[in-house]
Amino acid sequence: MSVSICTIGELIVEFLAKHKNQGFSQPGEFLGPFPSGAPAIYAAQVAKLGFESTLFSCVGNDDFGQMNIERLRNEGVNTDGITVINKAPTGSAFVSYRNQFERDFIFNIPNSACGYLSPEHLDESLLSRCTHFHIMGSSLFSFRMIDSMRKAIKMIKKNNGTVSFDPNVRKEMMNIPEMQQAFDYILEYTDIFLPSEGEIHYFSDQKNASETDIVKQLINNGVKHIVIKRGAEGASYYHANQELHIKSNAVEMIDPTGAGDCFGATFVSLFLAGYPVEQALKYANASGALAVSRSGPMEGISSMEDIAKFLAR
Amino acid sequence: MSVSICTIGELIVEFLAKHKNQGFSQPGEFLGPFPSGAPAIYAAQVAKLGFESTLFSCVGNDDFGQMNIERLRNEGVNTDGITVINKAPTGSAFVSYRNQFERDFIFNIPNSACGYLSPEHLDESLLSRCTHFHIMGSSLFSFRMIDSMRKAIKMIKKNNGTVSFDPNVRKEMMNIPEMQQAFDYILEYTDIFLPSEGEIHYFSDQKNASETDIVKQLINNGVKHIVIKRGAEGASYYHANQELHIKSNAVEMIDPTGAGDCFGATFVSLFLAGYPVEQALKYANASGALAVSRSGPMEGISSMEDIAKFLAR
Repeated sequence: MSVSICTIGELIVEFLAKHKNQGFSQPGEFLGPFPSGAPAIYAAQVAKLGFESTLFSCVGNDDFGQMNIERLRNEGVNTDGITVINKAPTGSAFVSYRNQFERDFIFNIPNSACGYLSPEHLDESLLSRCTHFHIMGSSLFSFRMIDSMRKAIKMIKKNNGTVSFDPNVRKEMMNIPEMQQAFDYILEYTDIFLPSEGEIHYFSDQKNASETDIVKQLINNGVKHIVIKRGAEGASYYHANQELHIKSNAVEMIDPTGAGDCFGATFVSLFLAGYPVEQALKYANASGALAVSRSGPMEGISSMEDIAKFLAR
Repeated sequence: MSVSICTIGELIVEFLAKHKNQGFSQPGEFLGPFPSGAPAIYAAQVAKLGFESTLFSCVGNDDFGQMNIERLRNEGVNTDGITVINKAPTGSAFVSYRNQFERDFIFNIPNSACGYLSPEHLDESLLSRCTHFHIMGSSLFSFRMIDSMRKAIKMIKKNNGTVSFDPNVRKEMMNIPEMQQAFDYILEYTDIFLPSEGEIHYFSDQKNASETDIVKQLINNGVKHIVIKRGAEGASYYHANQELHIKSNAVEMIDPTGAGDCFGATFVSLFLAGYPVEQALKYANASGALAVSRSGPMEGISSMEDIAKFLAR
């Protein structure tokens, strides 16, 4: 069975403050609109590697939405699952960097077009062509969206497909109790779990549990493969009877947005396509490194050739 | 009784495309956030002239909203009627000029914080201090907002106050049947009507009726004062037994956004304060001219001194 990956969630435009510490409290210069949204970046990266990629989302009936659809189509993403709605404009994010690691955001997502995505927007024949469903935690911002995720999980699992989950936690979202419940529900069906080093602790009942303990517990609970993203420190892969650690590739950090999404898309695509775990991990790591070295959320996606060249340096 | 003017409606941030014909379909540079929204510009202009000015609106719990409140407060507007809500972000508008007269927009207003403004946000003691209520047609974008307008009209009229109405029509809004009904309702209570030359024809049942006929009919129906804004061609004032036309002041057109709002704010403030109609009209015209000569929606508001200086050139 060939790899066909779908994902569901926010497809938005992003505006980047031109200067560090510019903030949002006085007029300045912003660069944009850039196509953005974690699931959208993920979908574009999957397609860029040459795999079948489908994104389910909603955009507004405006130029931002049209630009996003065209961009994804040009990257090779199947955009038939993207609905244009009149009720709300395309979502947006304003980003201002304080330094390499800290950013300030103003999001318009739950009240934007993609916030209206609901189970009826998921075309079943399109969904039934997919062998894998990837879930971004950042997309679990509304009941409608969580219900859509449930529908997709059910359908994919019925067809013997697999599910991956990148918690992509936004601190401000963890206060929503429904979200914590959604996390528990999704983990039950997760085959490939892709937290960052800092996120893994959200997934333990015990305070101060070690990473190894949490990983062991998750595997006992049924998660088959765990990949921990450590950014500049590399990544780790855990399986019931396997453990693998790789180092990172040194790059100049230009814009971290999208790096984790590119990493996840590359790992999941290659892993499902049958590449050896070590190679999938190395390529994923390189994909993340290439992403941070380019400005703009979706501007850092890489082809297999880009990654091979980068690793051959 | 001293003049105390309130208005209700959108308080948003605006981003201006840096280059002509830049559009929204590829990344470019935008300048912003600028405080914006027709009623907000109006309120700032009233305060800048030295009159009591109150704006009722909602902003999101974000830096854009905070910036807007602080800016209005600095201009002298009473911001006690502005509610910060968590449900939605501060509204926004992206503007790209094609030429001096044509603009492209992407708005996020009805789904933004100010779209949640409803009658319970109108503090009655604050409202009861106002002697005049100004309505912007651009603000009639939701049932909640229209209901709020009704509440304010009722209260102001009960206290023997007056109402002005600037249709500020957005073509895309005229398709909403509720809006047409709201127009009819508001006109019944309107003391000062401030359409632009191009808008007056929306207010006639007869096709191809002349401006004079429409004005006569509106006055017969109870509108006491009509001011028609003609931009670079000046303005006209009509009353049951008076008619007055003034020419415009030549200025370089930099950014037309907000000019009509500044014109209206200046005319209404001075007229209510007892200035002779001709002077109110001249000052309003100068206020509009000064507004177009500055970039940014609220950046072109003028003090009495600014206007006097401009007219003395």
